[in-house]
Amino acid sequence: MADKGLLLVLSGPSGVGKGTVKSSIVDNKVFPFEYSVSMTTRKPRPGEVDGKDYYFVTEERFKQAIADGELLEYNKYVGNYYGTPLAPVKNLLKEGKDVLLEIDVNGAQKVREKMPDGVFIFLTPPDLHTLHLRLENRGTESEEVILGRIKQARKEILVMQDYDYAVVNDTVANAVDHIKAIVDAEHVSVKRVIDDYRQMVRED
Amino acid sequence: MADKGLLLVLSGPSGVGKGTVKSSIVDNKVFPFEYSVSMTTRKPRPGEVDGKDYYFVTEERFKQAIADGELLEYNKYVGNYYGTPLAPVKNLLKEGKDVLLEIDVNGAQKVREKMPDGVFIFLTPPDLHTLHLRLENRGTESEEVILGRIKQARKEILVMQDYDYAVVNDTVANAVDHIKAIVDAEHVSVKRVIDDYRQMVRED
Repeated sequence: MADKGLLLVLSGPSGVGKGTVKSSIVDNKVFPFEYSVSMTTRKPRPGEVDGKDYYFVTEERFKQAIADGELLEYNKYVGNYYGTPLAPVKNLLKEGKDVLLEIDVNGAQKVREKMPDGVFIFLTPPDLHTLHLRLENRGTESEEVILGRIKQARKEILVMQDYDYAVVNDTVANAVDHIKAIVDAEHVSVKRVIDDYRQMVRED
Repeated sequence: MADKGLLLVLSGPSGVGKGTVKSSIVDNKVFPFEYSVSMTTRKPRPGEVDGKDYYFVTEERFKQAIADGELLEYNKYVGNYYGTPLAPVKNLLKEGKDVLLEIDVNGAQKVREKMPDGVFIFLTPPDLHTLHLRLENRGTESEEVILGRIKQARKEILVMQDYDYAVVNDTVANAVDHIKAIVDAEHVSVKRVIDDYRQMVRED
């Protein structure tokens, strides 16, 4: 059965460990997926290959890509633009390949607007998960620290509510196991496979 | 974090192998879940224990349970009633325990009306999955057999569309692996955990 690929968007608060989790998925070949090569205005570093590590472009070309809607999402970081070209992602999905994007929460929001069928995974810091325990055991930390963390947690929960899954990054292995299960489950979700089944039994 | 239990409803066409898949989950302790003891008007067989194998009741008591809305679903089979009492299921879920029901498609439909938050898994026959291959290789089977199967498949797909997941029972091991992934993924789905996170950071 022709299975369409999944667009997996791995995101979460800054510092939660998105990169480490993604590397573990890659290194351990947890499930097969394709990279999406990003476009950037940053200069290539020694050894970096255009079209493999990044598409290296001028700022003029990048801004044209933005204007023409060629990018799924983009941002500016330390004076350079970084973005995800849309067309290659769409082609990979059409070929039935899963695509994994590891991006910040602003990027994820832009992706959601353009590709709401994506699978949006919010990686949560373990201390968000254990915050309730700390609240129940006040005294071990200052009131100020706890109140600050509650304020931050409220912001994170506001962002999380637009995602499909919330995976606690308590250990990288646990987080990766959950992500593997999510990918497997999504591939057999009725909303994704029903059209293939219908196609199969149409009058012809 | 207080995780609410999942109501897992395993269903599918007659003869698809629901019982075998459920037994494999039980025998291999694939994931922990609770049984829901059914109520029946059938007479106990030697060794069967009331309240463990079934709640054995009179037809009058069973009909009262139906009238009082005590049953999540019920059916009549070879002259006897069989049903799933609602209260114990709700209590187990509240305690954070997953409950697995293995029932026919009519029962599943009734459960969906009362408990739409359940996870509804449709087990599909492998020949539904491979039907398109057979259609592409006409000649290996009579036109009549294929047309009959298409008609049947259309009915199955109509039923499937109300489910959350469609798992092909090509091998019991594969089906069980998918179900395990579904359970894991559902436990980290934002719609199920967001209230716990919100609860955690409420003003108190």
